Amino acid sequence: MIEKHVLGLRNLSAEQIQEILNTATLMRPLMDSINKKITYLQGKNVITLFYENSTRTRVSFELAAKYLGATTTNISVATSSVNKGETLIDTVKTLQAMGVDIVIIRHPMTGAPKILAEHIDAKVINAGDGINEHPTQALLDLYTMQTYKGMIKDLKVVIAGDILHSRVARSNIWGLTKLGAKVILTGPATLMPRDVEKLGVEVSFNVKEAVKDADVVMALRIQKERQESGLFPSLREYHKFFGINEQVLSYAKPDVLVMHPGPVNRGVELSSQLIDGGHSVIEEQVTNGVAIRMALLYLMTRGGDL
Amino acid sequence: MIEKHVLGLRNLSAEQIQEILNTATLMRPLMDSINKKITYLQGKNVITLFYENSTRTRVSFELAAKYLGATTTNISVATSSVNKGETLIDTVKTLQAMGVDIVIIRHPMTGAPKILAEHIDAKVINAGDGINEHPTQALLDLYTMQTYKGMIKDLKVVIAGDILHSRVARSNIWGLTKLGAKVILTGPATLMPRDVEKLGVEVSFNVKEAVKDADVVMALRIQKERQESGLFPSLREYHKFFGINEQVLSYAKPDVLVMHPGPVNRGVELSSQLIDGGHSVIEEQVTNGVAIRMALLYLMTRGGDL
Amino acid sequence: MIEKHVLGLRNLSAEQIQEILNTATLMRPLMDSINKKITYLQGKNVITLFYENSTRTRVSFELAAKYLGATTTNISVATSSVNKGETLIDTVKTLQAMGVDIVIIRHPMTGAPKILAEHIDAKVINAGDGINEHPTQALLDLYTMQTYKGMIKDLKVVIAGDILHSRVARSNIWGLTKLGAKVILTGPATLMPRDVEKLGVEVSFNVKEAVKDADVVMALRIQKERQESGLFPSLREYHKFFGINEQVLSYAKPDVLVMHPGPVNRGVELSSQLIDGGHSVIEEQVTNGVAIRMALLYLMTRGGDL
Repeated sequence: MIEKHVLGLRNLSAEQIQEILNTATLMRPLMDSINKKITYLQGKNVITLFYENSTRTRVSFELAAKYLGATTTNISVATSSVNKGETLIDTVKTLQAMGVDIVIIRHPMTGAPKILAEHIDAKVINAGDGINEHPTQALLDLYTMQTYKGMIKDLKVVIAGDILHSRVARSNIWGLTKLGAKVILTGPATLMPRDVEKLGVEVSFNVKEAVKDADVVMALRIQKERQESGLFPSLREYHKFFGINEQVLSYAKPDVLVMHPGPVNRGVELSSQLIDGGHSVIEEQVTNGVAIRMALLYLMTRGGDL
Repeated sequence: MIEKHVLGLRNLSAEQIQEILNTATLMRPLMDSINKKITYLQGKNVITLFYENSTRTRVSFELAAKYLGATTTNISVATSSVNKGETLIDTVKTLQAMGVDIVIIRHPMTGAPKILAEHIDAKVINAGDGINEHPTQALLDLYTMQTYKGMIKDLKVVIAGDILHSRVARSNIWGLTKLGAKVILTGPATLMPRDVEKLGVEVSFNVKEAVKDADVVMALRIQKERQESGLFPSLREYHKFFGINEQVLSYAKPDVLVMHPGPVNRGVELSSQLIDGGHSVIEEQVTNGVAIRMALLYLMTRGGDL
Repeated sequence: MIEKHVLGLRNLSAEQIQEILNTATLMRPLMDSINKKITYLQGKNVITLFYENSTRTRVSFELAAKYLGATTTNISVATSSVNKGETLIDTVKTLQAMGVDIVIIRHPMTGAPKILAEHIDAKVINAGDGINEHPTQALLDLYTMQTYKGMIKDLKVVIAGDILHSRVARSNIWGLTKLGAKVILTGPATLMPRDVEKLGVEVSFNVKEAVKDADVVMALRIQKERQESGLFPSLREYHKFFGINEQVLSYAKPDVLVMHPGPVNRGVELSSQLIDGGHSVIEEQVTNGVAIRMALLYLMTRGGDL
């Protein structure tokens, strides 16, 4: 018997090593066997076309598609002929001509997925475009809130951080307000969009005041690469004024959920204690992200009853 | 009903969002079904998480997993958000939350897989950590020796090269001594760990003396990138004093096996004549590498009889 | 019957080429079925080994292999241990030892696939080698012409652009002349190979004269990265003298096909109007590229009747 991990031979017994060797002999003929998928997206081709790196989102989509039986192919622009000056639309028309059914795109330009969708027949899922939207992230956030709170309506949801540059915030604002939640934004004044109240949300520059009686506190990721813009406080200053720790959280409801789209800068947006604590549903968000993406893929390609 | 594209939440109705959320609930249980693949790892998700490049090891694991019907996903850190300052543990917890069952990790830091294993639920296979261990390489080496020699016990095995920096040597030393082989290390004195005799092995700085009556001669790969360290002889000097060629090999037993973990620097560790000659089992090692990795994956996930 | 490797059209007979084209016709409908995985290449391992970037060709081969049920693995050299100084032949011998059946190789060196094929047992498909050949591109071009024109024989085909550096042109010249087409090359004199008439083609330095009564006008991609060589006109000059637009095309037959291997530099090789116009079969070429690659994979591994 092999226990859970295999970290080295140092902690394996001679018997264990022998067992592995013997099993290898049984495995050799199996090298010629193979696959069989019988599921909802059988016969569908999904491409992830990422103009920005994001292993987390890319893998989540990839697994969702595979769980449903689709074929997946990844294109990351760093290693791609997309660099050769071909337009985005021509690139995707080419993929479409090869039989691709669904294109999952991440692009630094706001609106790129929309332009694409207007010019091609394949289906498009926005996996994040500029500072505009990241809809599957918001959907998984909503789904996570709903699983814990029963319904979104009338929840008090605080979104803390760099609202100005956050496509996650923007998509959540749309979703939360549509479902009847009360949304409070908090963060440095330099990182708060103007006229944001038009969207039906409140703004507070005092994090404790914002968090008061909150059902959900969602911290956004600080993009360190944006810190040179001059709009940003230092990470220490940020944590001091807008970081969420146990003390700040004590102002919220006792059953408050702590959320974050990840990856978290520990000790900046959230204290390590909170990340790993009982209020945190950060890992649950990740799991729900796969389920949400499966749901989308299913609905976009089948649409019938399960 | 979801129309064709999902570009943002802005243009989705509350009903559409709700439908997506509800469908996600139906999708959750499907996350455990997966690929049928009708094989032993059907439904298992294997991730290769490589913080150092290694096409050879990565492809070997990937094929092993695919042959058993698992779903595989590759993450190489060069193109990954792992760069964004996320800790290794947080990265893997995220993968785990997406349904990843087995993480195959290569990392430049000694002990990284162990730290990982202590903090996560997914199973971990070390594919090489710093100068510590590379257990699957040693297992495939042992397996290769056994297929040719019947048993490992009492074999005289010479390991030649940069022992100091070699995780392959280290894992082989653990494995060979546990199985009762006699191990002789040879290589430049600057590249020999101190106190190595404590491990139950012998050391010789004369390659011909070391090779005398050997059943197996295993040459290690010279890492050219380490040559600036000052510990190293030039490649020509290395070959002159510790390279294995026909003349050196004539001191070994007539049925000696010539082994190398690959890729070989032709004319440095081994002469081209030996690499392609009758004693060489280098290609057989590669084939056995896939079988060993299949064996591990099988035992770690099933554990029952075949 | 296709013998083992497909290294170029130069050494294929007209009968072999015709058999591939006919098989592609049988493959087209399979592009919509997909994953059944109970298919012709079940149990086969296909590796794409690309020493030059090409998302388009790589994805086309990958999808072709997947549609037929093969397992695919991608290796791009930028992120690979192939960099570690291992020879090409050693790299592929290693892959072969892991159970790889077919190696699809793109390499900047003319002749690399041929050298490889002489040293390994796995089957090799040339996906473009230096300025030598790109046989699957030419086969898909031939197949596209045949689907529209019924037969290749006696068609007047104009190839316009940088003939000197074009492996696409070279493979098309072999294929078209074998099947009895009349080939006219046009482009800047500095980019025209010498002695090209020996291949049984005509040359014209006047694009309108070349295009006169043409059945097919195939524009080649201008490699912007080659413009520093001094052989090249500027892009504006190129377009002025050799770019294909509506006016130039008016000299061709009324049912002329406009072709391009992609990606197109809009407004350089072809006007945007033509790319998106009624004569263009550029997207159809892409679709046919998958079918042709399926045909080759099928013929190389099965060879029997469908």
